[in-house]
Amino acid sequence: MQNLTVALDAMGGDFGPRVTVPASVQALSHFPALKVILVGDQSSITRELHKLGISEHARLSIRHTEQTISNNEKPSVALRHFQQSSMAVCLDLVAQGEASAVVSAGNTGALMALSRFKLKLLPGIDRPALVSALPTASNKRTWMLDLGANISSDADSLFQFAVMGSALAENDLSSQPRVAILNIGEEEIKGNDLVKRCAEMLSQAENINYVGYIEGNQLFNDVADVIVCDGFVGNVCLKTCEGTAQLFVDKLKNWMSTSSVRGWLLRRLLPDLFKELKTLNPDQYNGASLLGLRGIVIKSHGSADVTAFENAIGEAVHEVKRQIPSRISDRLETVLLERHY
Amino acid sequence: MQNLTVALDAMGGDFGPRVTVPASVQALSHFPALKVILVGDQSSITRELHKLGISEHARLSIRHTEQTISNNEKPSVALRHFQQSSMAVCLDLVAQGEASAVVSAGNTGALMALSRFKLKLLPGIDRPALVSALPTASNKRTWMLDLGANISSDADSLFQFAVMGSALAENDLSSQPRVAILNIGEEEIKGNDLVKRCAEMLSQAENINYVGYIEGNQLFNDVADVIVCDGFVGNVCLKTCEGTAQLFVDKLKNWMSTSSVRGWLLRRLLPDLFKELKTLNPDQYNGASLLGLRGIVIKSHGSADVTAFENAIGEAVHEVKRQIPSRISDRLETVLLERHY
Repeated sequence: MQNLTVALDAMGGDFGPRVTVPASVQALSHFPALKVILVGDQSSITRELHKLGISEHARLSIRHTEQTISNNEKPSVALRHFQQSSMAVCLDLVAQGEASAVVSAGNTGALMALSRFKLKLLPGIDRPALVSALPTASNKRTWMLDLGANISSDADSLFQFAVMGSALAENDLSSQPRVAILNIGEEEIKGNDLVKRCAEMLSQAENINYVGYIEGNQLFNDVADVIVCDGFVGNVCLKTCEGTAQLFVDKLKNWMSTSSVRGWLLRRLLPDLFKELKTLNPDQYNGASLLGLRGIVIKSHGSADVTAFENAIGEAVHEVKRQIPSRISDRLETVLLERHY
Repeated sequence: MQNLTVALDAMGGDFGPRVTVPASVQALSHFPALKVILVGDQSSITRELHKLGISEHARLSIRHTEQTISNNEKPSVALRHFQQSSMAVCLDLVAQGEASAVVSAGNTGALMALSRFKLKLLPGIDRPALVSALPTASNKRTWMLDLGANISSDADSLFQFAVMGSALAENDLSSQPRVAILNIGEEEIKGNDLVKRCAEMLSQAENINYVGYIEGNQLFNDVADVIVCDGFVGNVCLKTCEGTAQLFVDKLKNWMSTSSVRGWLLRRLLPDLFKELKTLNPDQYNGASLLGLRGIVIKSHGSADVTAFENAIGEAVHEVKRQIPSRISDRLETVLLERHY
């Protein structure tokens, strides 16, 4: 029987308990087996619960802690001085087996450093990776990693990212997930040494369905289920999607805000579009997962609203049910065995 | 007196003379001082001119050559076996002083290799860079480089990119162009060694208006006039803009194509939007420039239509008038002098 308890960093993100508390309550009603431990300042959490008319909930408990990590804190400082922070206590709960997953909208660098320190890496994994799902034009999704857990990677790490991404994607698919490497050309001769070495390793791996290189303009075309790249490139790429999407939304909003008949009509015709466009920023919409650890860690966007934070909790539930960390271990073992014999 | 003669690779791109010839004729009527040398297969070029009812034009000449370079040819093969290709002959015309600029929609790798071989690098420049202008939300433009002329770069090259970008941008501005480095965080502590080293060099350069790091989601926010990054990252970034923009356009088109009243109304309300959205793909719209050479080389997108190819010719005219190569040299000399004394 799985322990569907999720530890929530109630204090993280731009809005803290004002977002995390209502999101938890919504998630509890969506997932009947879910239990939530809200970690943070008890009085702030209680206040938000009261606003929602809740004084007690059978599947919700509070773990009081006074310390919180601000967004300006360096990872090294977080490790040294913030062991009692809401974020760190959440990770302790997973490390001790009281919870199966952590969801936090707090400081990304601190979350990565503390996660690695408290949960440890899975055997065979050298570096954790941040992964999120891009939407595709055909309403499927493509997992992309690393989105910035590392500022540089070697070919071995990229190979491990491919294994981790495959383990995450295979639950959504009937066939083997298609794995591609993000590159600056589709031809075999193009790209830097890193992608070329990784391509060689992936083509030789029998248990990975490697489909070749992919360029930035193909990201949403459903040509791969998993896209691997180093963390610097992945982070730039994700944020560029975000920036381009924002530019479009702003342009449309400009058109809609004019006092002309056209503006009036567009205001009535296009609102649903914005809801759809929101999903284009997966990090903001659904949260990103930190893979490669002995536990499930979901990073929600700092500016997440109630719906977005609830989606991040939903992602945690999804990964707990599918036991992603042990799936990664199993897959890695198969692939490594095959390479050794 | 400037020589406003532009050598056009008539055979390059997906459509060859069918696009390059009408685009040249349009450009000639827009720029009264422009002279064009169309380089390629004489009979194909003449046929397209006849279609336009032109048998002779005082400012248009044809340089016949039979060889063309396909998109699959490797740069090394282009260098060895395609010295008489339309692209190579265009570059010869610039090297010999008969033309001031080349515009080609042909094989990018071949164009870069042949340009470097035939035109040579400017003194003080180690690597050429591909640059293009992104539109900003406030209808200005931001020059970004390198977009893929190099698959990797060191801090010295990035510094030179900043100098070249500044020389290109200063014509549009009354004040010193603001230079930023593309990074995965805005904080000083973030980023890889490459960006950190380049940041240090740029902060110390008195003649560069360095404004710090920029993230992918800020590209269109008019926070910099010049953005520097290595060619791998820049190419992924540009193509990601293209892919995201395409996804949006496709979504809007879906909405517009429905047979409902809403679809009908949107078809009438939104057509101008697509024109505006097209400018979001600068590479496709305006061409990219190869900077750092002793001559002006404009790379048009392979799939450019007549308008886009004409825009690329316009960019060539713009750069000839502003004598970009000698401006780069001057600026580089000032910056280097300052560093040595």
